[in-house]
Formats: sequence, structure tokens, C-alpha cells
Amino acid sequence: MSFNTFGHMFRFTTWGESHGPALGVVVDGCPPGIALSAEIIQRDLDRRKPGQSRFTTQRREEDLVHILSGTFADEADGLTKTTGTPISLMIENTDQRSKDYSEIKDKFRPGHADFTYQQKYGIRDFKGSGRASARETAARVAAGAVARLVIPQVRIRASLVQMGPHRIDHANFDWDEVDKNPFFCADPIAAQRWEPYLDGIRKDGNSVGAVIEVVAEGVPPGWGAPIYGKLSADLASAMMSINAVKGVEIGDGFAAASLTGTENADEMRAGNAGPYFKSNRAGGVLGGISNGDPIVVRFAVKPTSSILTPRETVTTHNENTEVMTKGRHDPCVGIRAVPIGEAMMALVLADHFLRHRGQTGRDGGVGF
Amino acid sequence: MSFNTFGHMFRFTTWGESHGPALGVVVDGCPPGIALSAEIIQRDLDRRKPGQSRFTTQRREEDLVHILSGTFADEADGLTKTTGTPISLMIENTDQRSKDYSEIKDKFRPGHADFTYQQKYGIRDFKGSGRASARETAARVAAGAVARLVIPQVRIRASLVQMGPHRIDHANFDWDEVDKNPFFCADPIAAQRWEPYLDGIRKDGNSVGAVIEVVAEGVPPGWGAPIYGKLSADLASAMMSINAVKGVEIGDGFAAASLTGTENADEMRAGNAGPYFKSNRAGGVLGGISNGDPIVVRFAVKPTSSILTPRETVTTHNENTEVMTKGRHDPCVGIRAVPIGEAMMALVLADHFLRHRGQTGRDGGVGF
Amino acid sequence: MSFNTFGHMFRFTTWGESHGPALGVVVDGCPPGIALSAEIIQRDLDRRKPGQSRFTTQRREEDLVHILSGTFADEADGLTKTTGTPISLMIENTDQRSKDYSEIKDKFRPGHADFTYQQKYGIRDFKGSGRASARETAARVAAGAVARLVIPQVRIRASLVQMGPHRIDHANFDWDEVDKNPFFCADPIAAQRWEPYLDGIRKDGNSVGAVIEVVAEGVPPGWGAPIYGKLSADLASAMMSINAVKGVEIGDGFAAASLTGTENADEMRAGNAGPYFKSNRAGGVLGGISNGDPIVVRFAVKPTSSILTPRETVTTHNENTEVMTKGRHDPCVGIRAVPIGEAMMALVLADHFLRHRGQTGRDGGVGF
Amino acid sequence: MSFNTFGHMFRFTTWGESHGPALGVVVDGCPPGIALSAEIIQRDLDRRKPGQSRFTTQRREEDLVHILSGTFADEADGLTKTTGTPISLMIENTDQRSKDYSEIKDKFRPGHADFTYQQKYGIRDFKGSGRASARETAARVAAGAVARLVIPQVRIRASLVQMGPHRIDHANFDWDEVDKNPFFCADPIAAQRWEPYLDGIRKDGNSVGAVIEVVAEGVPPGWGAPIYGKLSADLASAMMSINAVKGVEIGDGFAAASLTGTENADEMRAGNAGPYFKSNRAGGVLGGISNGDPIVVRFAVKPTSSILTPRETVTTHNENTEVMTKGRHDPCVGIRAVPIGEAMMALVLADHFLRHRGQTGRDGGVGF
Repeated sequence: MSFNTFGHMFRFTTWGESHGPALGVVVDGCPPGIALSAEIIQRDLDRRKPGQSRFTTQRREEDLVHILSGTFADEADGLTKTTGTPISLMIENTDQRSKDYSEIKDKFRPGHADFTYQQKYGIRDFKGSGRASARETAARVAAGAVARLVIPQVRIRASLVQMGPHRIDHANFDWDEVDKNPFFCADPIAAQRWEPYLDGIRKDGNSVGAVIEVVAEGVPPGWGAPIYGKLSADLASAMMSINAVKGVEIGDGFAAASLTGTENADEMRAGNAGPYFKSNRAGGVLGGISNGDPIVVRFAVKPTSSILTPRETVTTHNENTEVMTKGRHDPCVGIRAVPIGEAMMALVLADHFLRHRGQTGRDGGVGF
Repeated sequence: MSFNTFGHMFRFTTWGESHGPALGVVVDGCPPGIALSAEIIQRDLDRRKPGQSRFTTQRREEDLVHILSGTFADEADGLTKTTGTPISLMIENTDQRSKDYSEIKDKFRPGHADFTYQQKYGIRDFKGSGRASARETAARVAAGAVARLVIPQVRIRASLVQMGPHRIDHANFDWDEVDKNPFFCADPIAAQRWEPYLDGIRKDGNSVGAVIEVVAEGVPPGWGAPIYGKLSADLASAMMSINAVKGVEIGDGFAAASLTGTENADEMRAGNAGPYFKSNRAGGVLGGISNGDPIVVRFAVKPTSSILTPRETVTTHNENTEVMTKGRHDPCVGIRAVPIGEAMMALVLADHFLRHRGQTGRDGGVGF
Repeated sequence: MSFNTFGHMFRFTTWGESHGPALGVVVDGCPPGIALSAEIIQRDLDRRKPGQSRFTTQRREEDLVHILSGTFADEADGLTKTTGTPISLMIENTDQRSKDYSEIKDKFRPGHADFTYQQKYGIRDFKGSGRASARETAARVAAGAVARLVIPQVRIRASLVQMGPHRIDHANFDWDEVDKNPFFCADPIAAQRWEPYLDGIRKDGNSVGAVIEVVAEGVPPGWGAPIYGKLSADLASAMMSINAVKGVEIGDGFAAASLTGTENADEMRAGNAGPYFKSNRAGGVLGGISNGDPIVVRFAVKPTSSILTPRETVTTHNENTEVMTKGRHDPCVGIRAVPIGEAMMALVLADHFLRHRGQTGRDGGVGF
Repeated sequence: MSFNTFGHMFRFTTWGESHGPALGVVVDGCPPGIALSAEIIQRDLDRRKPGQSRFTTQRREEDLVHILSGTFADEADGLTKTTGTPISLMIENTDQRSKDYSEIKDKFRPGHADFTYQQKYGIRDFKGSGRASARETAARVAAGAVARLVIPQVRIRASLVQMGPHRIDHANFDWDEVDKNPFFCADPIAAQRWEPYLDGIRKDGNSVGAVIEVVAEGVPPGWGAPIYGKLSADLASAMMSINAVKGVEIGDGFAAASLTGTENADEMRAGNAGPYFKSNRAGGVLGGISNGDPIVVRFAVKPTSSILTPRETVTTHNENTEVMTKGRHDPCVGIRAVPIGEAMMALVLADHFLRHRGQTGRDGGVGF
């Protein structure tokens, strides 16, 4: 988890800037013998791809993934499978149209990492935000597609549950709706209302924040670890590492602070296959370890700072000025954060599955 | 960051159960030459110590810390200083009164880690929750006291900002008030109102959640790192690793989701010593790197599940039953989480300070 | 593997100086459910303990180990077992006789770490070499005793195979002899000859180097990993981390450099239970992964620099002087390195066992 | 240091098989502001490149490196410099001539990793040894070229000092000779004698082992760390991770085992700029920390098992057979290990430089 690497047993390292020749990820520690192809990864990448509706940036990145290493054709069944060695995935940057960077080269865009990268490193790749660009998330999504294959018994889905101040109504929640609207929103009524709202935001040259909920079903009891290896701690780190994320919560999250102990505790009952919980306020994690219930995580994305409205800022020589980010940006970056959140969930769970199996020799809990 | 270790360059490993002979922490990577004594550490430990008011558990743990290694008397000035080698800190458990564990030995307490530890490991230290006990946090606070000395230019303070549904009024916020009430609350009016409220909760044999805000002032621009080593990601992991924490946010956090880009961006102006930000919605972190403004983190603590009200649960043999946690518990564990949050902030920042210095050779940003 | 921690899944962190109150180790990632007691660990510690013959230092350290955390009595069988949480082991320093350190306080002993610690840290614990003392190895041996229990199918033994210029004759090699002479030497003839030789060295106030061979039998094919996680690379690091070690080799080691490809290759034949190797020049490791043959590692220990003969050196103020290390030192530190080498072998193998199981879900190879 | 990653602060991850589309390395943690170009890296790669004389494999790999990320043109001076973000280097495989693998597909070559990869993973990339191919070392050499730039004050050179049973005469040692013969040998007389010797080995369809010595001058006192982070331990791991390496030693290494304490200790004298050592038997490392003297490491390379002489082996179905490795192989892989050893030295030292600077805030020792 140092700088550009995440994970312990299933770990990945991303690299690349938005305006360089390519970006990519190296996945290390993947179990061998898993059927893997570029097509499988592409499916997830296509969900994150920009330009799929008028509500995401109109940059036209194909985001075609190439598998450069770590797989081999199994003679037994003809399938290309992971070999247990590092899987290198590369995505070429195709939409690097020659552009005038003079506006942002010498100015710090408020809300961006321009100022902090300059201060930290003394040198800054100002083209398309360099390493701080959200294009890095394509690499995570590619790695996440591999992670999903490591834990096929787990189903990971996500939905936009809040856009700006507008929350969904959980009474309308239907996973089947997620791919039927341009917002990855499980509430079709909310999605309908959001269209004109986000159109307005977009036309105003403005942007808006969002909240995403990610749910993993099928995680057995026992994944995670005490103290600093808590499943919840790694999920918090994973989600907070996504661009523009400012908050993470598990289960009831911040709402749990308002509750009393009698309200909050998920009571248990004896079931045929072992105990079950009558509610899931815990979000599937107790003491940092999965309890068998769905893992529920939400994260908040701030509105992108790249807006068409001029904002006060300073030049790299500390002179007052204004800046307006022209170009093709997302009015609500939270939309494309939906598949990214799914990927991070998969990556954390795959890692914890291998760590749990390593320490205990079991795939899940001891059972009943 | 594996299991019981946190941090990279400044890293610490905690060990110990609540009802074993002792608990402790090994701090590795501490810079040499820092004056350190048990007294300095004790000061922080005493703030976390139980039994300081009727609002925290009445267990009487002295929490006396012993320095077992890593320091040496400097002949030049007579001060005991860190030598750059591992600092081992131990706290003996003194209040292990012989107790009847039959109630919890064979039952899973709802909201506790009983069930998940049992499932993960197949064996469970049921005395005082074993490793899942909040006593582990004493070890963090001890390590955090060392971390503070590594970054003396940084001032870290925290306050309870919400108890149950009751938030403080930031208009009343005064850091000097924090140590004047039993809640570590910077709003004296709120603190006053909370007394009868928490008395009621306590008398009902109930408990309540809370939100803590931690602020670090004096962090220069440049600490943190891109992508998975983001300061915000490590802070999220650090806070989420504290017992009972279910949510973490930086700066405006979840509230940022409701804002538009024009509202959210912290505009910049030219100052005498370089640019400054007109607001701090970012909470001092941009692109994962500190921007020179105060680092602001909040985390939500759920109400403790150890309450005097019977709850439905099952036995370890999957039979329906009820459980009631007798004993001396905190009606609001969030109170004692205040010094713990400070410690985790110090531990993350000390680590990032060393990492930044290692990579760049500078203590902070390049400056203007 | 940072500073004072070793290992990935089965990892341990040691702490403590020779003249502080205690030293110890925290073992993290140990599988749960393993019967563990102080007695089991003590057996290994007693083999490393000083003062067992006139050929090791006459310091009288009891080296009594205390288990401070990580175990719990299993009600099912009454045995104390590991719980999967950190195991903290502590050994109190009992022989800290008040001593005159004026001689070494202001002088750098040649061959010691005095000069380098002073230069690195600017402060140096000069009592008994501080952290650079070989007493740290007691902590490893304690951790190694736990590691052995994780891989009970593996038998780890070691022998002194060279003392000064005198090598053993492998024709006389008999593991049963190891504990019958004061040198942990599997060649009884050599051991007999070494007695008067080492007596002479000792009476001259001199010291001598040694080579230790460590063999692990019962390791299945498949442990280890490609490239930087090679079993051989981790073994090299493990052995080189022992005080005074200056060389490590696997299998034929340096002798392999003199061979041709036809001589060196271990040919294979079909056996009933799968292929076997006709020879073991590889030392049980191919491409960094175990091949089912015994793992064979040798390491060279330099003669201790703490001798009763005056040597030229400088003061901490860069003035020429002489130094003579009085006190109770080992004429051949290689002797006590024998159980230490065994411990490091166990620690590396336990870690790789868990890592292999985590990635592949198997305890060993796929078999035939 | 997990699987395919090496290093802590300056860390790199390699990927790629010999017969896939490409191989590469991601360098993370590199300091910013260092002038870097493909040309600089290419210089080191060209030294490792096959086919430079009749004594190395006749495969014709161009080994052209591409920098895919992590650099940016500094407007101040027009130089392309590191930005502090991950540097992705890629080398395309150009010589993947269609080849008949039927011979090795179903047989385990003795001395190769064929058997162990098959057992560990259950699937094996049999084309050109897959991940176990020495082509992976091209990625290290590329990363090592970057590492050298991080520590420009350190001069790292290496020489073949033994080929088969034939050692160089240190009396003839002259660094300037290294690039004047096809063996990277600093002894021109030895190099001359080795030509006919290796011609004979080659014509016999045989191979031979070697020993390489790597020396780093200009390392200040203070790099390295106690115990498991010892400079010597990391160097041992680094060198042992190179294909075919079976032994590593520092300074006098195994020869130190034959010495007495009076012979072995490097005595010290007062110099104008501080103390100096009268000899360097320690190889520049005391207690795991550099002492200011040249760091001297030697490693032994076994003869390659890919020889034109048939050897006994088994099929993947455990049937007796013979195998003969046709194709273009190195009669002495030790030759091309010379620049690889230099690269690993640079990589270890760059990492320790950053770690030392991080912990202490100094580039080297405290000085006099």
C-alpha cells in the first residue's frame, strides 16, 4: 500500500498519466489457473469509459486493454489462464489531441492537485492533470476485473444513491435498473428526475457531487483481520484513494452515531445453516471481519473542480488571477465512480480472501 | 499495514488482549535523538484512561507505560533519547478481577466481534473480548505520543462534535474548552446539555454513538502521496481501524456530495509567504497531498453493543437465547475515542513526514 | 522486512537491547489453533543459551520466555492454543551486572557496529552493543519455535560444518551426534579435534569464524515464489541478517561456480510417487521454488571482534588509541549460531507456506 | 519484496515473459527532478544485451526501452525529468521466432524451474521458460539505471572474478579493463586465458559457472539499518534473486570463517576527515550499516542447465526420458550477470539512501 501499490497478497501497481502514451497496471499474486481474456476485462472498462452519455466527459477514449503478461493457453481446454505470475495490463491513450495548456500550465486550479504536486515534487505534469488525472482509475477497473474472477462466488454491484442534494428512495431500489439509465442508479424514479437536474448543472458550466453505494453479496464469514488489517479499514483506504472522494462509511456509517445501542445492534437468530442476523446495520463487518451479510460501503465524491465558471486563483509565481477550466469534463464525476467503486471492493475482497486462506487454510469461516 | 502493524517508515505493531498479563506496542523507524520519557507518553495515556468521569467505564486501569527498549541517556545533556531502534512500550493489565464469563463464553454478543472471530479462527478469547477489546487502543495512544514528538511543529487536537443526534454548534467552538468537560468537547454549551442526556442513556442501560473531529495544524504542503498512498486514504484507514468506527470523512466529507463545483472549490489568493486558500472545504488535502491548511478529519463511532438491555442472540451451538452485557462499560465510547483519534492522526502524519523526507529530501514543500 | 520486521504472512518484529530490562518479539499472522506453551519455546531457547560449555560466553542469562498474548486455553481439550492474533514473547535480561563501560563508551571497537550506529544515528547505546548485540537472536529463536509448529511436517536441523579452517568430513555426518558435543557438530571426529583447537583460541584471547549448514526435510514442492520472493532470496536475507554473518549459499553454492552444466544439473527419474532427483546440488530450490528435496543452506560467521587482544582504533573524537574487549565473549560465535540458523529457516518456511497456501489454496504442489 | 516487487522506498515491480509481447518494470518512489531519458537507460541495457560476442547467446534482442510514464519536460532547462510518480519502462520482445516447443513442453529440464513452476501453479508457460527466463533481468537493469541516477555520488562497477574453476589474480585487477574483453573481467590476463577455455566449453555443448564481484564506492557511512533491514541482508536477497545465483558473500565472506579475530578485524586510525579503516575485510558493512568503505559483494552463478548434452529427466506424465536443450544459450550466464549485479547493487543502495534520509533527515553519517 505504498504510493502506487495496493494490497498484500493480491496486489496491484498502477502507472501512467492521462496524456502520456499509455497507462496500466501490474497485478501480482493472482492465483493460477483462472480463465482470463482481454474481453472479460474490457467489459468492466467499457462501463467506466467516458462519453457514453451527455452526462459524462465527451473525451473519446477507447480504453482498449492489452494483456502483456501473466497468462498462458492451457492445452487441456484451450482457455487462456492466469499462470500465477504478474499480469501486466496496458491501455493506450488515444485521445491526446494537441491542446493549449498555457492556461493551466502557470495557474493552480482550485480544488485540483496542481498546487500540492508542485509543492511536493517541484515539478508538475500539467497536461491533463498528469498522474492526478481520473484516467488512473481505468487501471483500477482493469485490475478489479481480474479480482472479480478470484472470488466468483461474490457478487459486487453498485449504485449512485445521491446526486447533489438529491437522494434516492430505497423503496424503489432495484439492481436491475442500474444499467438502464445513464447514472448507474438503482432507483428509476430518481434517475428520471436527475436528468433535467444534471442538464441544468451542465449547461450552467457547473458540476455536482454524489454518493455511491457498493454492495458485495456472497462474502463468507471470516474475511478480514483484526486491528489495522480490518476489512473496513482497507475498504476505507480503497475508496478514499479514488479521485475526489472525501468520505467513506460502512453499513449505517455516520447515521450510526445518532443511534442508541439498543437500536444499533444487529440481533441474531438460529437458522438452519447457522446463526443469521436480523438486520445489517453493521454493513457485513464486525470487528473488521466479515460476518456473512452483504458488505455495504458508501463513499462521497465531491463535485469536480474543473468547471466552466471562472474562479479566483494564483499563478505559479504567486500572482492573483482567475482560471476557468475549458475542455471536456464530467458534470458529475460520481457517475463514473460507480464501476470504480465496484472494482475497489473486488480488489479489497480478493486480497482478503487470499490472506484469510493463507493464515487459516480455509476459504471462509469454520461453519456450524 | 498488515494485520497488527500500521505505517511504512514510522510503523508500529500492537499486541495484547484486555485480560492477558499486558498489552503493548513496538514502534519501528522512529528518528533518533528525540527526547522521550515514560512521563511524556503517560500524559496522553491518562487522557484515554477509563474511569475519569461517570461517563466512561468504571474499570480502574492504571495504564502505566514502561519503555522497554529504544532509548538511551545522551551524555551530552542527560536526556533519555530515542536511538533509532525499536521502541517497545508495555502496559500491564492490572484490573483483571476474576469474573464470571459463563454468560458470554457460549453466546455471541450482537454487534461484537464474538461471532466473526469464532468463525475466522475457530477459537476465541472470550475474556473481555480478547484482541477485539478497546484496550488495544491504549497501545496506539502510547505510540501516538511518540509520533507527536517526531513532528513537533504540528499541533493535533480533537473534539467530540456529535453525541447521539446532538451536534455541537461550531459558533461556540473553542479548543480551550476541550479539557474542561468530561466529553472532550470544544463547545461548552453542547457539553453542558450532553450531561443530562448521557446520564439518561446510562441509567437506561443503553449507549449512544458519536462523531469526533480531529484537526492537525502546522502540516506543511507536500506530505502525502499520489493514488494509494494518499494522506486521505491512510487517514481513512487509520480512523476506520479504531474499534466501533463506521465512517470517516475529510474536510466537508459527505456534505461535499451536496455541493456544486462553484460552491466547493477552495479559491486561492496570493499571500506574502505564498498562495493561500480562502476556505478549507478540502480539509487540507488535495490529490492526497497536504496543501498547508489544517488537516480536518471526522469519524463516526457507533454506540457500544455492550448494554444492560437484553438482546436476542444465539449460542455458539446455534440455539436461540438472549444476552445482556453486565459489567463496566462506556455509555458513549466516542468520548475516549477523542485522544485515540488524535493519536492516529499523529501516527499517520509522522509516517508521511518521513516518507516525504525520504523521497524528496525536504521537510515540506518547495515553497515560494 | 523493514528494519526490525521479517516476513510477510508469518511475520515477526523483534525489539530490545542486551542491557535494557528485556527483549522480545511479536509474531503476527500465525495460524490459529496451534498448541503453544512457554515450555515448547524454552526448549529452543535453551539450545541457544550462553554458558552451556566453556566454549560459549560465560554470561549467565536464564533466557526465560514469557508469552504475553496471542494464546488461549481451548475448552475442548484444555490445551493453550494460538488464537490467530499477535503472539508477544518477552525475555527479561537478568545478567546486567553493573559494569565499567568507560573503555568502550568513547572508543569504536573494530569489527563492531559502534562506528556505524554512531554515524547513522548520532547516538549510540554503548552498553553491551545495544541493539547490535547478539542477544537479539534470542528473540528470533523464540519466534522460530513458533514457526516450527506451523510446519510440523518439516524437520529442520543444523550442524557446525567448519570451525576456522577446519571442515568436517561429510563421510562422518550423523545428525544424532549434533547434541552430543559442545559444537552442535554432526561429525563426532571433527568435534573431538575442535576441542583442543578452540581451547587454544580461547586461551590466546582470540576468536575464530565458522560455517553452519541448515537442512530442512519434508518441504513439499511449490513453496517459494518467482523473482524477488524466491525462497532462496528470502533465505539469503534471513541468514545474512544474523549477527556476524558474511556469506550465504544454497545447495552447492559457490562450488557450483566451478562446475560445468553436465556436472551440475540434478537429473530426474520417474518414481512411484512422482519424479525424483538423482542428486541435490540445487539444495532443494529451483527457480526460487522448493522442488521437494531437502532445502540446504550454509552461512559463514566471521570471528567475533570482541577479543582480549588489543587492537588499533580511534576514539569518538577521532584520536588514535587501542581497545581490548574485556568481558565474557564467545571464542566462536558460530556455535550458538546453529540454533539461530534453524530458527531463521523455520521462519522463512512458515512464511512461504502461508503465502503459497494463500495464493494457490494448496499446501504443496499439484502432485502426480 | 513480495513476489515481483523489490525495495521499500525506492521500489520496483517487474513483469513479463520471454516470449510474450513485452516485458517491463514499474519504478515507484523515485525522487522527483532527476534528468532521465531512454538513452541513459539504454546504455546499461546494451551492456546486458545478448549476442555481443560469441560467448553469449546469439538471440538478437534489441532490448529497446520505452519510458511510458513518470517523466516530464522541465520548462526551465528543457530536460525531461522524473516527476516523483511511477516510471513505467517497457521493452518489447522482438525475437520470438516461431519455434518448436514440443521437446520441452512435456519434459522437465533438469536444473530449470519447469518442474517447480508446474508443481506450484499447475500451469506452466513453457515458451522460453516463461517468467523464469533470464530475460526478466533486462527489466532490473533498466530499473537499476534509474537507481544510479538517484545516488550519483556512488560509483558502482563489477567484474567477473571467476569462470569455472579459474579465478582472476587480484594483482592484475584494473577496472579500466572490464569493458575491453567479452567477459567484463578486470584482469586482462585471466580474460585472455578464459577465451580458449570458454570456446572449448561452448563447442562441447556444455556450460560453466562463474563468480561476479560488485563494488560500490562513495557510499557514506550510515546507510542500511539494524537487524532485518541490514544492507548486507538486502544485498544478499537482491543478488540471490538473480537467475542461477546460488551464493552471496560480503567482504571476505566465506573466507572470514577461516580467520581468527585478530586477523579479521579492520583496525581504525584517525584521519583528517574522520576515522578510517586500515583494511576492508568487512566489505564496507558493519552491523548491517555502511561504514564509508567500498561495499564489496560477490555472488556465484551456477552453470546454465540449458546445454546441448542430453540429460536424464522425466515427462510431465512421470515417464523416464532424456532432454537436450537446443537453441541459443549462454555457455557462461555469469558474463551477462555482471551488469545485472551492478543494477541490483544500485537498486539496494538507492532504496537505503531514501530510507536513511527519511528516518534521519541526513544524506549520510553525522560526520566528525
